[in-house]
Amino acid sequence: MNFTKVHGLGNDFVVVNAFQEALPADLAALARAVCDRHFGIGADGLVLLLPAENPENHLRMRIFNPDGSEPEMCGNAIRCFARLAWEDGLVKDTVIRVETLAGVMVPEVILGENGQVRGIRVDMGEPILERNLIPMQGPAGTVVNEPLQVGEYALHITAVSMGNPHAVTFVEDLSHFPWQTVGPLLESHPAFPRKVNAEFVQVVNRQEMIMRVWERGAGPTLACGTGACATLVAAVLNDLTERKATIHLAGGDLEIEWDASTNHVFMTGPATIVFTGKYQVR
Amino acid sequence: MNFTKVHGLGNDFVVVNAFQEALPADLAALARAVCDRHFGIGADGLVLLLPAENPENHLRMRIFNPDGSEPEMCGNAIRCFARLAWEDGLVKDTVIRVETLAGVMVPEVILGENGQVRGIRVDMGEPILERNLIPMQGPAGTVVNEPLQVGEYALHITAVSMGNPHAVTFVEDLSHFPWQTVGPLLESHPAFPRKVNAEFVQVVNRQEMIMRVWERGAGPTLACGTGACATLVAAVLNDLTERKATIHLAGGDLEIEWDASTNHVFMTGPATIVFTGKYQVR
Repeated sequence: MNFTKVHGLGNDFVVVNAFQEALPADLAALARAVCDRHFGIGADGLVLLLPAENPENHLRMRIFNPDGSEPEMCGNAIRCFARLAWEDGLVKDTVIRVETLAGVMVPEVILGENGQVRGIRVDMGEPILERNLIPMQGPAGTVVNEPLQVGEYALHITAVSMGNPHAVTFVEDLSHFPWQTVGPLLESHPAFPRKVNAEFVQVVNRQEMIMRVWERGAGPTLACGTGACATLVAAVLNDLTERKATIHLAGGDLEIEWDASTNHVFMTGPATIVFTGKYQVR
Repeated sequence: MNFTKVHGLGNDFVVVNAFQEALPADLAALARAVCDRHFGIGADGLVLLLPAENPENHLRMRIFNPDGSEPEMCGNAIRCFARLAWEDGLVKDTVIRVETLAGVMVPEVILGENGQVRGIRVDMGEPILERNLIPMQGPAGTVVNEPLQVGEYALHITAVSMGNPHAVTFVEDLSHFPWQTVGPLLESHPAFPRKVNAEFVQVVNRQEMIMRVWERGAGPTLACGTGACATLVAAVLNDLTERKATIHLAGGDLEIEWDASTNHVFMTGPATIVFTGKYQVR
């Protein structure tokens, strides 16, 4: 089975073009075998490029986790998907309509002056700012720069949902802030009935931030796309940046824009091809 | 750069045939990039197939750790090396003389009835049984089934060095023995001035054992070749198995033989080819 290994800020996927490759019937078993980092190829997920079911769309994406389960969507995976669809010539439009379990997503391939892929832009939808929809305990309204005592730390948080809950904390100097200690305390704080992803952010200037994330259920990760979106929204709500800014994550950079006219958040980031391979399916 | 991904009991390597591939000058940087499990190919090491410097030998092996350092040797890596040398047709003899930083190693390709590779046999040298050479504190002599209090656990250990120190504990039922608790306590026990690898072993019959290992500085690992050798030697010293037995590790099986005539320990184990690939060196 031929495959391409692609990563989006270190979130790495084995991508298989199912137009060309015959796949075994048990895709969950294939994902478990392929994703294993010692006995398989090693990846955070298996991504399949498939024909669309509805002729209005270009393609269909399926993604499988290393445990064989099938999540609805993944912001890093769809960038890798779009990059491969473009490189393999499966689409001629740079705006690609992709069927996923979370509905139709529309990633856009951004080309540089030389015609090479500069990044992939993804519509991440509208942020949810109403407290009880995030969900967070407390009176109705938004949660902007609100004091919250977390263990011994007196934080000020801004809460944003991008479909999943985020609590964003702006700090003076990220290198001297113990975010790996505060992160798990904030994640499990009783104010968040479904727990929360915790972002810690240093503003560099009005177009640039540095962000580290403690992901709900996962701890520190190299990059969190929804966390970067929530961070930009929180920064705008606190008038710390413009509506468009570059966010430096541990795994690399994302460019986030909160479009005023549509209220949608757009994320532009890389999808890097690392190698191609031929795997012996057992 | 073309490569082959091979693992020995889950200890996985990117193997490059340097007869065919041009390598960059900075091999440490290449190893760091290639071994990275999110941004690279992902491996426990980069292994190079090179021409021998001395015409008496067939080949030369170099191995690089994920941090770019170059260890002398690795029992799992040399099996992967021998498998690729054979499959790529670089040698015609099944007994291969390989130059390494630890001297000339002589792995043997074991073929099945169909001519396919059944495993690779490696001479692991002579065990060291003298207490102060292991090294372990106490009076001169061997350490066989010797009582040792480790925290609240009253163990009986047998100590063997295979170039590195091992303390082997035989238990009735491995599934009910808290070896992940005892392992780190034994590793750092003051009786072992250079610390110790801790093996916990259940004897199935005189040809078969189940072993779990707490590796010095690494914790629980899928497989430890020298640990399996030390285990067989310890079992023979306690008259629990024959001089040849199969050892079931978390990552798979090894066949160990302590040859009476030469006093050498021979390890036979698999080297499994997972995939071939083409990597873009940056």
